[in-house]
Amino acid sequence: MKATVKIMLKNGVLDPQGKAIGHALDGLGFDGVNEVRQGKIIELDLVEGTSEVSIKEMCDKLLANPVIEDYEILMVA
Amino acid sequence: MKATVKIMLKNGVLDPQGKAIGHALDGLGFDGVNEVRQGKIIELDLVEGTSEVSIKEMCDKLLANPVIEDYEILMVA
Repeated sequence: MKATVKIMLKNGVLDPQGKAIGHALDGLGFDGVNEVRQGKIIELDLVEGTSEVSIKEMCDKLLANPVIEDYEILMVA
Repeated sequence: MKATVKIMLKNGVLDPQGKAIGHALDGLGFDGVNEVRQGKIIELDLVEGTSEVSIKEMCDKLLANPVIEDYEILMVA
């Protein structure tokens, strides 16, 4: 089974990487970009029967920093 | 309008970051993780009416490296 974890900085947390991408797009002539935020996506290939609770634990212990990041788990079956 | 770009390394391209995460999960006692791959997610806040073609151009010119990465554009309206 596969699961995808999407990790983004919380709203209000400064995202310098996103800001840099925004400036670079501007420099390349792309107008109309208001804001850019960058996050991570982690695709897990797991043995059958892994519970969402267990994936949540992986996120809290290693994958995300719950202080500044929000995560979202998508089970792909 | 918002658009999300999901960028992953192409299949077959070595992903050392993903490998490192896999080893770390293993070390923390999470069995049953077969493979981990890490990618990027870029959320764009754009002015209304930005076309998907223009976002594709941003991806090809800056956001992704088409030689080793695949990207997927999701328009969130």
